[in-house]
Amino acid sequence: MSRTLTADLPQRIGQRVTLRGWVHRRRRLSRIAFLVVRDRSGLAQVVADGNLLDALGEETVVAVEGTVVANPRAPGGAELTDPRITVLGSATPPPVELWRPALTAGLPTLLDHAPIAWRHPARSAVWQLAAASVRGFRRALDARGFIEIQTPKLVGGSTESGATVFVVDYFGRPAYLAQSPQFYKQMMVGVFERVYEVGPVFRAEPHDTVRHLAEYVSLDVELGFVDDHRDVLAVLRDVLAGMVGTIRAEAAQAVERAAARLPEVPERIPLIHFRDALALVGADPDEPDLAPEHERHIGRWALEEHGSDFVAVEGYPARKRPFYTHPEPGDAGSTNSFDLLFRGLELVTGGQRLHEYADYARALADRGEATDAFEPYLQAFRHGMPPHGGFAIGLERWTARLVGADNVRRTTLFPRDLHRLAP
Amino acid sequence: MSRTLTADLPQRIGQRVTLRGWVHRRRRLSRIAFLVVRDRSGLAQVVADGNLLDALGEETVVAVEGTVVANPRAPGGAELTDPRITVLGSATPPPVELWRPALTAGLPTLLDHAPIAWRHPARSAVWQLAAASVRGFRRALDARGFIEIQTPKLVGGSTESGATVFVVDYFGRPAYLAQSPQFYKQMMVGVFERVYEVGPVFRAEPHDTVRHLAEYVSLDVELGFVDDHRDVLAVLRDVLAGMVGTIRAEAAQAVERAAARLPEVPERIPLIHFRDALALVGADPDEPDLAPEHERHIGRWALEEHGSDFVAVEGYPARKRPFYTHPEPGDAGSTNSFDLLFRGLELVTGGQRLHEYADYARALADRGEATDAFEPYLQAFRHGMPPHGGFAIGLERWTARLVGADNVRRTTLFPRDLHRLAP
Repeated sequence: MSRTLTADLPQRIGQRVTLRGWVHRRRRLSRIAFLVVRDRSGLAQVVADGNLLDALGEETVVAVEGTVVANPRAPGGAELTDPRITVLGSATPPPVELWRPALTAGLPTLLDHAPIAWRHPARSAVWQLAAASVRGFRRALDARGFIEIQTPKLVGGSTESGATVFVVDYFGRPAYLAQSPQFYKQMMVGVFERVYEVGPVFRAEPHDTVRHLAEYVSLDVELGFVDDHRDVLAVLRDVLAGMVGTIRAEAAQAVERAAARLPEVPERIPLIHFRDALALVGADPDEPDLAPEHERHIGRWALEEHGSDFVAVEGYPARKRPFYTHPEPGDAGSTNSFDLLFRGLELVTGGQRLHEYADYARALADRGEATDAFEPYLQAFRHGMPPHGGFAIGLERWTARLVGADNVRRTTLFPRDLHRLAP
Repeated sequence: MSRTLTADLPQRIGQRVTLRGWVHRRRRLSRIAFLVVRDRSGLAQVVADGNLLDALGEETVVAVEGTVVANPRAPGGAELTDPRITVLGSATPPPVELWRPALTAGLPTLLDHAPIAWRHPARSAVWQLAAASVRGFRRALDARGFIEIQTPKLVGGSTESGATVFVVDYFGRPAYLAQSPQFYKQMMVGVFERVYEVGPVFRAEPHDTVRHLAEYVSLDVELGFVDDHRDVLAVLRDVLAGMVGTIRAEAAQAVERAAARLPEVPERIPLIHFRDALALVGADPDEPDLAPEHERHIGRWALEEHGSDFVAVEGYPARKRPFYTHPEPGDAGSTNSFDLLFRGLELVTGGQRLHEYADYARALADRGEATDAFEPYLQAFRHGMPPHGGFAIGLERWTARLVGADNVRRTTLFPRDLHRLAP
């Protein structure tokens, strides 16, 4: 008999159907017993003989043939009666109690038993939000003439500083894991003008913080023919609106189960210059960066002044930005770059890049670096590149903000850090 | 003035517009000169003063303001006259002649200068086919209740044989680059039932062949509640149809420019058992695998007998398949697995997997391997997994077959092999 999803039971009242899923919970009342079956669409209640339940431990995979009966007190208003149950996959008692409304296990337990813990409806909803976000990200960009690229993660040199790269034994010589697709997406602007990539990036991050991982998913965008970084910010705004819009349209149930708080994305994201931001938070005007408490302050300001969960800070000092960052016209010490803060935390870094070969050569020389190692990439700039810029969104941070998670490890399927390589 | 794409010129006859793009070609005739501008949508002809062209070498990035005039002999039936040209990005002469209809440079030159060579319309079309394929892949799966996952590429152990993994210095201890998301997608079947992933996989492939790379893009699918591998093959069929359908609908111009030959995907993919395949090609019935000439033979047979570019071979011998492969009922020496041949070359490997913990423990013991290293993954099987299976498509191989490329390096943006780590 073909399979029926639990969510479709209300449409099948009076019919004989077969559910397939996991034994989510067993409940014995005085005169009756229930089996709650979980599948990818939700939960369903099966009225069963209590004796039957003894052999069906939680997480046993079953097929349940039964008759659909209307019952206003059952989830979805329908339940299965007169069941015939077949075991499809056996189970020993799980290490976390998945049937409880909230997962009470601590973070180490959740991570050690990730393959099981993600089965909890409040956990799986978190990843459904992530997946819907990525769908919305791609859809917004596809609609704007962008093309998706897939670039190598094994690279011969590092784009950013060399301190935090992982070294790979590459047929007897060293290779590195890409910290970002930065150069690749820029080179591909020379081909397609507008590109994006969704993929892993790697940071040999020696700090054990709630915001950093050794591997995370980066949503990278790069586009040509911009006037400056504000054109990039305008695309970022549309992308964020697309991500939130897709969640609203296609993952409403996950929003509820994960208790996510979706932001409104304003038509224009409030923008403040770095030097004004320092003044706003009362910091020393010579500070080269914003401290976390400054970011929170600016986040509160954006909410109070502009009613926005988002605020962009532009004009970061050149000395704190990568060498490929385009300077601010008229102020070489500042850059055409921005950070986007979401609810007071940095979510996105972006900006305009240098696009002339001579500017790259000068920027590298200023930092005392030779251009030789970069030549395979810099050739793109020798042979005609438009003014361009882009940004990168950390997927796990985004989802963490949506669900108010205190640690990005809670929104990563299988996090990697200083201590953790498995599962 | 806002930008007009070259492809939109025919709709703007009589108007003053601004194109932005690359100087693709300069042509001086006796009394007139042309500038051909390339942007992401195609090419446009600009009627220009011959003296102007001297300063505009090929690949210079320009903005060209001009008046759109109908001209049946111009590409698209329209050209730009009375131009005002602004240089946006400078260029020295490119290492490959991008304006020639065909790129005649040899493969090493194309790869050394990949950022430039991909700009050629016949090259960029190849990646447009790849991108459309991935779009179709995702769309077909999204429509069937699958969810996209992102799993770690840094792993503590290797899934397949240990001989071909890259070793990473992970904070002073060894980690490995994932050869496939195999275990992860299986574990996630326990959560979402139907999952897919598009991401890089890594093989420390010491052989220098036209079919193998050290890093490639794998389109991975895994689904639960299957009866056997044929349910998996049915999903693969629908996915391939979705990929081809999206190319037809959204990349018709790229098909033409890349001279791709699209297959028809039959309603049912012809299926032959491994032992019958050996008999068909006249091989020794004890052969454990199909040689490349056997695959070509079977491919010809499928085309002649079934009119199909695709044929699946099922029932591969267990000794040539990974330990997690489900045996064929009634014949423990064969497996519920398949290879899909596309035009006589292996494109996809798939099948049903073991789903009971005890079967994994036994399979590992049979191979003399301890379960300890696998426990973080095997816990999923201790706690209830449905019968499941899946497959993986190599993106570069797929595109190579579509365009008849003799080497997967031609369909990879930046290939990685024994010798190549840059650009």
